[in-house]
Amino acid sequence: MAAASIITIGDELLIGQTIDTNSAWMAQELNKIGVWVKRRVAVGDVWDEIWNALDEESKHSEIVLITGGLGPTADDITKPLLCEYFGGKMIVSEAALQNVKDIFTKLNRPIIERNLKQAEVPDVCTVLNNKRGTAPGMEFRKDGKLYVSMPGVPHEMKGIMLDYVLPKLPSLFNLPVVYHQTLLTAGVGESFLADMIKDFEEALPAYIKLAYLPNYGMVRLRLTGRGDNKAAVEQEVNERFAELKLLVKEFMVTDTDEPMEMAIGKILRGLNKTMGTAESCTGGAIASLITSIAGSSDYFKGSIVSYANEVKENLLSVQHETLATVGAVSEETVTQMVKGAITQLKVDYAVATSGILGPGGGTAEKPVGMVWVAVGNKNKTVTQKFQWRFDRARNTDLTVQNALNMLRKFILSEHDQQVK
Amino acid sequence: MAAASIITIGDELLIGQTIDTNSAWMAQELNKIGVWVKRRVAVGDVWDEIWNALDEESKHSEIVLITGGLGPTADDITKPLLCEYFGGKMIVSEAALQNVKDIFTKLNRPIIERNLKQAEVPDVCTVLNNKRGTAPGMEFRKDGKLYVSMPGVPHEMKGIMLDYVLPKLPSLFNLPVVYHQTLLTAGVGESFLADMIKDFEEALPAYIKLAYLPNYGMVRLRLTGRGDNKAAVEQEVNERFAELKLLVKEFMVTDTDEPMEMAIGKILRGLNKTMGTAESCTGGAIASLITSIAGSSDYFKGSIVSYANEVKENLLSVQHETLATVGAVSEETVTQMVKGAITQLKVDYAVATSGILGPGGGTAEKPVGMVWVAVGNKNKTVTQKFQWRFDRARNTDLTVQNALNMLRKFILSEHDQQVK
Repeated sequence: MAAASIITIGDELLIGQTIDTNSAWMAQELNKIGVWVKRRVAVGDVWDEIWNALDEESKHSEIVLITGGLGPTADDITKPLLCEYFGGKMIVSEAALQNVKDIFTKLNRPIIERNLKQAEVPDVCTVLNNKRGTAPGMEFRKDGKLYVSMPGVPHEMKGIMLDYVLPKLPSLFNLPVVYHQTLLTAGVGESFLADMIKDFEEALPAYIKLAYLPNYGMVRLRLTGRGDNKAAVEQEVNERFAELKLLVKEFMVTDTDEPMEMAIGKILRGLNKTMGTAESCTGGAIASLITSIAGSSDYFKGSIVSYANEVKENLLSVQHETLATVGAVSEETVTQMVKGAITQLKVDYAVATSGILGPGGGTAEKPVGMVWVAVGNKNKTVTQKFQWRFDRARNTDLTVQNALNMLRKFILSEHDQQVK
Repeated sequence: MAAASIITIGDELLIGQTIDTNSAWMAQELNKIGVWVKRRVAVGDVWDEIWNALDEESKHSEIVLITGGLGPTADDITKPLLCEYFGGKMIVSEAALQNVKDIFTKLNRPIIERNLKQAEVPDVCTVLNNKRGTAPGMEFRKDGKLYVSMPGVPHEMKGIMLDYVLPKLPSLFNLPVVYHQTLLTAGVGESFLADMIKDFEEALPAYIKLAYLPNYGMVRLRLTGRGDNKAAVEQEVNERFAELKLLVKEFMVTDTDEPMEMAIGKILRGLNKTMGTAESCTGGAIASLITSIAGSSDYFKGSIVSYANEVKENLLSVQHETLATVGAVSEETVTQMVKGAITQLKVDYAVATSGILGPGGGTAEKPVGMVWVAVGNKNKTVTQKFQWRFDRARNTDLTVQNALNMLRKFILSEHDQQVK
């Protein structure tokens, strides 16, 4: 199996000012075509460190993909380094120069010297045209290994990967079949799940691997099969996956590698129903997640984010009395918020949240992390109280995911009852 | 300067199913206390790969921090590997066992064998108590180097870093002073900025570095000084920073290392004004970002997410006529949305968005990526049309950031006029 190393270059990664999302995307895409990402390495904008990383990763992998360090500013030393590493000299690439000119013409901005310099490349590379930016991709070969240098800007890197790198790899390397099946569970811990499927896991053949991917109180289970025969690998994985689905049926959200917000969208679209949200503590995060899915306008109509109590009263008809007595973080308030959202937004289902996500704002009776969630339709509401123990961001994410899971279960149970 | 390597273990990182946020956080915290993160390496759950990474990073760095691979399930091999690597044998740690029992008692869940096994550790390590989970942290020493193994769950890793690792490092290593100053610019490209401050950059002494950190059409500029004398480093960086601020004054959003949503919050709090949002295409993402800041209830009252046109009409009083003639993605609609939000949410300022973020839904007249944004108060509205060229997620982020920058500029200009 061809092994790849991903080298990301940039001080911003090593002082933590940037989170590396490039590597994850690259790994996903490489994995789909049977390239095994053996290592990911991040180094700073330091000549010796980059050189050393190239040397080391050349020992580990046949494919070395490099991102970052190609910007127009003075702190980028990657291009001259690659030129020296592969024993070339810098020349102007006419194709890259034309690309820079075209982009500036399109943007209607004047070109400055610094931009023109981006068209300079080592004469020992093949230029990979960057349709989305001014820094060209560069392909090098050495001792039977492939090296590709790409800009660190995610959408530029993705363009070069999709246009050149991914299509080319199968012709250069002997790639095996890799096949995944993934399901998502909610409401069960990793350990319990592991115990539940212990026998199944132990009976798996060596070429099929089971992975547990826990996040936000949910656990993703992934089966990965590897082999030479596509049909055989897929059939074997699919058979095992069918077995696995039966074993965890009770907790399964979806048997596709998709997030909760997509699973809910599919259910609503299938039933031709609509939803909305009434959010206090989550501040629009549920609506934002739902609408991150293209086509969500088919089932999502809107949201009333009622961060202030007066908005809860004015727009969601939460009773002043309720807020004055039991307060905003209460079962009564979220129940009324669901009703208000259904009426105001004219939707079939709504979800409401109210809580204290921290770090401040807690009291003895209502400590930080306490959140009430309600889901319902015009006839019925289901509520649940959560007590999170984490930071603001994680408490928010946990509330969002659990609220959506409550809504999902509510919709399915209502539908089952109607069918019966 | 003490160098650190971060090793993250887990197949999920190499097939791209998880984005590594741990490393960025660790790098930030280490950087603050003067530890230089020299390399970050990710390897899979493979014995030889982990062993090899330990060998290699031991050559690069005095501090080797390891996350991941400590879960209760069968695919985790890190603990026995560390035991063998450091020449120990597995024993039960009474402290770790008590911690597991305490956690399960608190959660009111039964303990199973798998959980108890988490209390087993190599006898050559110092156990670092994990207050947030069942997998203990482990500290090893070898040839004057420090190794710490931590769980991959972010909040558990953070707990162990904050409780043990970060407080301990200054006593073990001779750490230099590292001092950063960061400012955020908007509305200017990286190349133009670089040209504008070319002379400034060239005149910087060797121990102060300038970095460009572009994101979402904004560019962060960071000065980093290193040295032995805290007062001298800080003074020098501060003087250069004052110079830099003057040079980029026109485009500067904030002179603190804070995001746009925090900068806006500070302005509103300072003026004792409130805001709300009326979001169509951004689907609550602006509200969600604003409320990600603790204490935002001081100035943020709420949002009406009007994804469906009928919600725009019913809750924001956008005229049916407008939607029927010029459509939802229009200057007229977002202008009315701002007015509607100010009236309904009773806020001083509002921002509204309507557009086509893709990938579908575009027409010849209104192509994918076209977005109208309006900001205003009860007397005045300012609008702008954007044309993004990226994917849905990036188009959303660009809209959110630019809308907030428009709002920021509007608030400041209104305030300046009032002061005059």
